[in-house]
Amino acid sequence: MNQVEIGRGKRALRAYSFDDIYLSPSRRTRDVDLVSSQWSIDAYTFAAPIVSAPTDSVVSPEGAIALGRLGVLSVLPLEGLWTRHEDPAAALAEVAEADNTPEADAQLRQLYRAPIDLDLLQARVRQISGAGVTTAGGVSPQRAAELAPIAISAGLDLLVVRGNTVSAEHVSQAQEPLNLRRFVGDLDVPVIVGGCSTYQAALHLMRTGAAGVLVGFGGGAAHRTANVLGIRVPMASAVADVAEARRDYLDESGGRYVHVIADGSVNTSGDLVKAIACGADAAMVGSALARSTQAPGGGYHWGPEAVHESLPRGARVELGTVGTWEEILYGPSERANGAMNLIGALRKAMATTGYSDIKEFQRVEVNVRPS
Amino acid sequence: MNQVEIGRGKRALRAYSFDDIYLSPSRRTRDVDLVSSQWSIDAYTFAAPIVSAPTDSVVSPEGAIALGRLGVLSVLPLEGLWTRHEDPAAALAEVAEADNTPEADAQLRQLYRAPIDLDLLQARVRQISGAGVTTAGGVSPQRAAELAPIAISAGLDLLVVRGNTVSAEHVSQAQEPLNLRRFVGDLDVPVIVGGCSTYQAALHLMRTGAAGVLVGFGGGAAHRTANVLGIRVPMASAVADVAEARRDYLDESGGRYVHVIADGSVNTSGDLVKAIACGADAAMVGSALARSTQAPGGGYHWGPEAVHESLPRGARVELGTVGTWEEILYGPSERANGAMNLIGALRKAMATTGYSDIKEFQRVEVNVRPS
Amino acid sequence: MNQVEIGRGKRALRAYSFDDIYLSPSRRTRDVDLVSSQWSIDAYTFAAPIVSAPTDSVVSPEGAIALGRLGVLSVLPLEGLWTRHEDPAAALAEVAEADNTPEADAQLRQLYRAPIDLDLLQARVRQISGAGVTTAGGVSPQRAAELAPIAISAGLDLLVVRGNTVSAEHVSQAQEPLNLRRFVGDLDVPVIVGGCSTYQAALHLMRTGAAGVLVGFGGGAAHRTANVLGIRVPMASAVADVAEARRDYLDESGGRYVHVIADGSVNTSGDLVKAIACGADAAMVGSALARSTQAPGGGYHWGPEAVHESLPRGARVELGTVGTWEEILYGPSERANGAMNLIGALRKAMATTGYSDIKEFQRVEVNVRPS
Amino acid sequence: MNQVEIGRGKRALRAYSFDDIYLSPSRRTRDVDLVSSQWSIDAYTFAAPIVSAPTDSVVSPEGAIALGRLGVLSVLPLEGLWTRHEDPAAALAEVAEADNTPEADAQLRQLYRAPIDLDLLQARVRQISGAGVTTAGGVSPQRAAELAPIAISAGLDLLVVRGNTVSAEHVSQAQEPLNLRRFVGDLDVPVIVGGCSTYQAALHLMRTGAAGVLVGFGGGAAHRTANVLGIRVPMASAVADVAEARRDYLDESGGRYVHVIADGSVNTSGDLVKAIACGADAAMVGSALARSTQAPGGGYHWGPEAVHESLPRGARVELGTVGTWEEILYGPSERANGAMNLIGALRKAMATTGYSDIKEFQRVEVNVRPS
Repeated sequence: MNQVEIGRGKRALRAYSFDDIYLSPSRRTRDVDLVSSQWSIDAYTFAAPIVSAPTDSVVSPEGAIALGRLGVLSVLPLEGLWTRHEDPAAALAEVAEADNTPEADAQLRQLYRAPIDLDLLQARVRQISGAGVTTAGGVSPQRAAELAPIAISAGLDLLVVRGNTVSAEHVSQAQEPLNLRRFVGDLDVPVIVGGCSTYQAALHLMRTGAAGVLVGFGGGAAHRTANVLGIRVPMASAVADVAEARRDYLDESGGRYVHVIADGSVNTSGDLVKAIACGADAAMVGSALARSTQAPGGGYHWGPEAVHESLPRGARVELGTVGTWEEILYGPSERANGAMNLIGALRKAMATTGYSDIKEFQRVEVNVRPS
Repeated sequence: MNQVEIGRGKRALRAYSFDDIYLSPSRRTRDVDLVSSQWSIDAYTFAAPIVSAPTDSVVSPEGAIALGRLGVLSVLPLEGLWTRHEDPAAALAEVAEADNTPEADAQLRQLYRAPIDLDLLQARVRQISGAGVTTAGGVSPQRAAELAPIAISAGLDLLVVRGNTVSAEHVSQAQEPLNLRRFVGDLDVPVIVGGCSTYQAALHLMRTGAAGVLVGFGGGAAHRTANVLGIRVPMASAVADVAEARRDYLDESGGRYVHVIADGSVNTSGDLVKAIACGADAAMVGSALARSTQAPGGGYHWGPEAVHESLPRGARVELGTVGTWEEILYGPSERANGAMNLIGALRKAMATTGYSDIKEFQRVEVNVRPS
Repeated sequence: MNQVEIGRGKRALRAYSFDDIYLSPSRRTRDVDLVSSQWSIDAYTFAAPIVSAPTDSVVSPEGAIALGRLGVLSVLPLEGLWTRHEDPAAALAEVAEADNTPEADAQLRQLYRAPIDLDLLQARVRQISGAGVTTAGGVSPQRAAELAPIAISAGLDLLVVRGNTVSAEHVSQAQEPLNLRRFVGDLDVPVIVGGCSTYQAALHLMRTGAAGVLVGFGGGAAHRTANVLGIRVPMASAVADVAEARRDYLDESGGRYVHVIADGSVNTSGDLVKAIACGADAAMVGSALARSTQAPGGGYHWGPEAVHESLPRGARVELGTVGTWEEILYGPSERANGAMNLIGALRKAMATTGYSDIKEFQRVEVNVRPS
Repeated sequence: MNQVEIGRGKRALRAYSFDDIYLSPSRRTRDVDLVSSQWSIDAYTFAAPIVSAPTDSVVSPEGAIALGRLGVLSVLPLEGLWTRHEDPAAALAEVAEADNTPEADAQLRQLYRAPIDLDLLQARVRQISGAGVTTAGGVSPQRAAELAPIAISAGLDLLVVRGNTVSAEHVSQAQEPLNLRRFVGDLDVPVIVGGCSTYQAALHLMRTGAAGVLVGFGGGAAHRTANVLGIRVPMASAVADVAEARRDYLDESGGRYVHVIADGSVNTSGDLVKAIACGADAAMVGSALARSTQAPGGGYHWGPEAVHESLPRGARVELGTVGTWEEILYGPSERANGAMNLIGALRKAMATTGYSDIKEFQRVEVNVRPS
């Protein structure tokens, strides 16, 4: 293990973030046309190895359909504004016009105080499902047992259970905390669950029967957990560790391949490339998609931790907009900042280093700064 | 040991600050309701593992009472303005309105030239003691022998002897330098003493009979010792080293548990979390409490080293204010910058990593940036 | 090897850029007059170990002649504006006066949509050749087979085949991808080819019969590949690796010395010094020459990757101008920022560390920041 | 040795600057009154371990006298403005009032084109010597043989031969390059010579019979050699290496103690502390003294490399002024930035870490950042 002693009797793991690593071109190169960015999980196949983050600034029901048609696994937040309000778009527009940030934040928090309307939730799921795209929804571990069956009965194809840290050994005083193994086993749809950040935690999640695990603490641009809680999940190391858990679980389970999905710090095309280089099968993307003119956030982005009532660990940030989702995913790009043509950049990186598909590309060589 | 050679014949210890480390979530999680932030030292128990820094920008006698009622070990500076002036609040208000910083600094230095009024000192101690909260006072090593008995006779429960570096082997030309072992042994109240920054120095301080040792050089935001003296105490390493001294002294003494209190660089909730993660039992907090609308500094913060007559190693800094002490300690927080809801953040960090009390939480896994 | 584990099952190479290293003076010193900066490749000898980057912001045909007379190996971009337009200078002046950057970029991209005029290409080559300087031209691997013979028949002395990453094992779906070994063998002129960035890749390129290899990803100031593709070639390590390939190939081939030319991150005189200190025989220089009042870019600089239609990995950047090419190469310099008197600085660095020629200077001692 | 491989076949030394290291307080402390900052070299004793840099922005003849009376070894630049002009103060005042930096720089360069007036040089030396302070002068290696005897005959007590890098093995095409061993041996006064930066180079300089060696490349704030030449001398490592040469030479010579004087990067009191902590006996100080209201630079600072005619490696920088030399050296200080009360800070650092004199203090413990 890659440990250092920070003082007598206290060791720490040296851990790398995406910003610390880069890919190294090797001796082979390849035409971009000979590269595939396709990704399949369970029965579903996508043109891009991208899962949209289940936050209101990224996807509305209409957006979920649009992103699905563009080859992305789009995930509707089942505890978000669209299952609480008939027309959140109007309310969001008002928030965006608030005179100042504290006022806007207060308005935003107010919108989340409305209860979830279960009929509305089912209607939203049916709307996406009816459009013929893969229909996925995101829930928190706290409300997973309650909301998942309702969404599935309305046509949900795939469930994402997402919290900052989700463990298979949660200690709770509630009468009956969520038993992930039984919960996943009882559902008729594949489940992606996380975040987790270590080999052991990931292995436990894989043993629940999940189809995929989220690696990371969620959020990237909008996340300030490191300052507030002192907790940090360096993504390059975390993804590599969990990819090793995937390999070991593949053997242990006699062949069950659990997908590793990087969830956090994937803000640019370069980050997407690095996530896969570290062993991810796909990446959950928030801010990059929130920069679309089509995103409900209108150039703003926030995650659930930003609207916490007493301990926010994120903030509503203004990202601005750069183009349509199609442009963000497939180009053309106009500026060399990694905000557009994510998949074009991924394919170019694969071609430059000589790999032909996502699975192979997980083996690409990387270099780190000498720091 | 974690040493490097900086040149032929000169080795240096690689040492880590709080900014270098972060916590790693592990495989277990826990409900926040099942987490305790309680801390006990000697006969006294506190809701928060926090000691207020004995500086005038943080606590007045009224403030000491208010902080004590909020579950903090509040420490009145016995050599500060409240034992020199009947009404320093008015003088401080004048300082705050000075036209420019040099003028304000000169006024501030002038206020400290007034002598300590021993009757006033006793009155201040009685005021706090009479309010029914744990009554603690802070003195410098130079004046400890003179002032401590006077304060104790007025009702002091606990004494803090605090200097930048306090050693059990001080070389002095004074007829009778402070003999810490005899001094601590003769007092009727528990003593917390420091700062120290190494295993050996801490072990020596523990052997004086102290109930707790301060780790660090004092100060954080307001401290510029590194530039002026070239001296730096990287807190993560220092706390970890001294925590090991606590373990070894526990064995050597046949069971005396000396509390390790981080004193320096604890500016945000994330820093508080990290201090305990490195092995601290509690942290001395200055700037974070000075940001209160209730603090005497009125949004300004300074330590004793800032008003030194010929070699200031700190400065009076403007921090601004963020809320009441209750909000700073227990929330609600409105911004994700670690300035508010310190205890809420600590409990959330403990829950996320699956620990139930402060003592257990000292074992949490940490990661460091690549190096 | 200098590897670290970034996570279980994923290793990375610790790799150094020019910014990470510096030269160490050793015990000998030397008069500047006793130092030679001369460089010879094949039959051609140059006063400076500098190859001008084949981009339109650096050289026009007139510029190639001027730079050649100053002792530089100047390379005309055969796929650039001067082989597409009769008078690109006028068009470039218009671009420079565009109201804003997006408009200027769009105009620039439009200029590159014009087809290459093969007669014009030959005229340009003849113009340079007729001036009596070494005549070199740069082509992409994609069009090398088509354009090289035409240019050579017009009098080209030396060919540069340059792409971001050029490998001897390119996988393509085109009927007949460029077979570098056959291509180089069939030509009557020496060929410099690259970029490459590893020992293995360089060794393969050397075996094609090339006279020199380019090390790096091309571009420096104008290059944003790290953000967009996640790919980075730390130049100090890459040059050192390829220099070792040169030594091994020298043995393997029974004495064929293939020149190692650093191509990327050589922006200042200090960078030029470091490139050679790492083992380069010469450096390809773009931005430093584009800062000339004589450069066609008029103070702007861009590489081919900046005008890519769908995935730009660079940008047109405004560098401003600092002086004539003679001043940039040989001084006098007026400001100590490494932008002027590149060769004077190189010679001074050689004198200070006691070396007398470029080949010897490759052995100079270097130091790195602590890590 | 502390080496890393930056690429195949190229190793580099990991080297530390003063900014990378800090002192660690240990278990002993001491009263400031029990600390001595005295330094003796040859027959001369000084209250402060400080040598003033021989540059015109720091010392005029009057300034040399004033600094000498304050207990500093002050060194008049024998090739500076005061040996070229009867009244350079007036000319410098004009330079300071120039409309812009390029104009001021040109005027400054012009001032240095005047020839050295040998009678004036002798008069300057006599003026200082007549005031009863230790009289020292600085020369370049190029003109040492010519100017030293003239200055000594006028009363010079001590000679400083200073260049960026001075070696005992200089290769020159001049008929008779300076033979340092013979030159030092023939002189009747002690000689300090440098800069050097490695163990070997220092050992060779010590063997010439020098009383002291300068470690470093000269200059600090005003020095941009790293950018222009790619050369860097990390001072903490260089001083430690040369201190080891001092120990080894002490044995080899049977007891000759050659003083190690840090020359470079000593800009603040913290840097002075660190220089000695790494093993220096004293430090040459430029910018810190140039900040005096008494310095001839009038708040500007430059070294000889800033006025080079064709390759400046420094610049005239505006530092502003902070107080008199007495305040800069002995306080009182008003701001905690390390610019004032250098000796007070040194003594405080020694007291805090428990050392009583400069020689002992060279053994103090240091820590480095984990980077």
